[in-house]
Amino acid sequence: MRIAVYGTTDRAAGLSEHSTTDRAIQGPRLARTTTQGMQTRQGILSVAARIASVEGLEGLTLGRLAAELAMSKSGLFAHFGSKEELQLATIEHARKIYVDQVIVPGLRHARGMASLYGLCNEYLGLMEGGIFPGGCFFAAAMAEFDSRPGPVRDRIAEVQRQWLDALERTARDAIERGELQAMTDAAQLAFELEAAMLASNWYYHLYSERDFFRRARLGVQSALEAKATASGKRAFQAAMTAVND
Amino acid sequence: MRIAVYGTTDRAAGLSEHSTTDRAIQGPRLARTTTQGMQTRQGILSVAARIASVEGLEGLTLGRLAAELAMSKSGLFAHFGSKEELQLATIEHARKIYVDQVIVPGLRHARGMASLYGLCNEYLGLMEGGIFPGGCFFAAAMAEFDSRPGPVRDRIAEVQRQWLDALERTARDAIERGELQAMTDAAQLAFELEAAMLASNWYYHLYSERDFFRRARLGVQSALEAKATASGKRAFQAAMTAVND
Repeated sequence: MRIAVYGTTDRAAGLSEHSTTDRAIQGPRLARTTTQGMQTRQGILSVAARIASVEGLEGLTLGRLAAELAMSKSGLFAHFGSKEELQLATIEHARKIYVDQVIVPGLRHARGMASLYGLCNEYLGLMEGGIFPGGCFFAAAMAEFDSRPGPVRDRIAEVQRQWLDALERTARDAIERGELQAMTDAAQLAFELEAAMLASNWYYHLYSERDFFRRARLGVQSALEAKATASGKRAFQAAMTAVND
Repeated sequence: MRIAVYGTTDRAAGLSEHSTTDRAIQGPRLARTTTQGMQTRQGILSVAARIASVEGLEGLTLGRLAAELAMSKSGLFAHFGSKEELQLATIEHARKIYVDQVIVPGLRHARGMASLYGLCNEYLGLMEGGIFPGGCFFAAAMAEFDSRPGPVRDRIAEVQRQWLDALERTARDAIERGELQAMTDAAQLAFELEAAMLASNWYYHLYSERDFFRRARLGVQSALEAKATASGKRAFQAAMTAVND
């Protein structure tokens, strides 16, 4: 798996599915869970992430979730202990979905330009598929928590930084491989790619117009092609063809 | 004033300061207000817009606002009648700030490329100046209301459409003037410019890093230069120099 090459000291390693430092899951407040308990827990968190994408992480109270699941509040309390633990666990659950469905398949492409295209393509595909009814979980979370200091905001900020870092590092790979012009600012390119993706999420959900995803794909393509070398353009086209075949 | 040239049948005319169709202000539920009443009203709405940018339009209850202003709830009720009227009036107040401080000065530049740069530059300048403590009023509003149908969401969607339309129409002016390549997709360029601006708003507020505004300016510049003709590049540089002198 490509992502392993980044090594354990790399910040983006936190995005890998091999990371076992899930604070919310392994926090001191929670007893060791059985396999069956974990399955229940995953089922609960899957519902929690869907609720949070629409109603916000602040709307995710134990009472609201208990009602949705037809469970007792005390049963949920045994799993999560507090609303904040539930919010943090839901963030980790969502993060794993993005790792499994964006980062891992995105980086299965060849290193460099193809992987950079891959990350953007998988992200947009996941959003187009409507995995969260309220749109991108982390876009909603950052909008909700940018003015609310605390551990929830800190964790959202870390995950978003890992995402920007993954894009930037992959852009740097592409520069090293001669697929992007040598003077390309990798962090700037990461920002421009993320901007197109993020904007499609907000505008799609405001207008229910899927055309905004097409705009994001065109935006990704023009940002990449503006900096691509001839070999980079070939790598981009090959990756796009491989995906669409 | 440049904006007047768009004519009254044009959708973006709704963004002009000459527009007097403020539903919330002139709605049937509200009695005619005196000049003094209007001033009080503007003062109230200024506070309301600041609260809403941080706590959301749903956090903007008559009780919350009354506490902030040390006014009675009944006094506020006389002004607004309901929470929804207050939300709609706050949106109109914020819209007017963007018209006066982004649209009007942005379009004072020469038509076409210079105005396109002007709109983006004024928007980013307003956000850098921190006019709303929670960041862009409309970015926050669209994030909050994209899953909440009703008149508030509808009005937010209209205002955002007017903003995208203003960018698109200005890009079309630049195409007609030969400042952008003839094959340029004006709506796509508007989307890419808006994406860079919107992303800087979210990331600045998540990390308190002003560098994201610099990234947005670079993103605007690279999107414009990617499609600019030689005369368009000169118009862009001249507008940027005029602003920074």
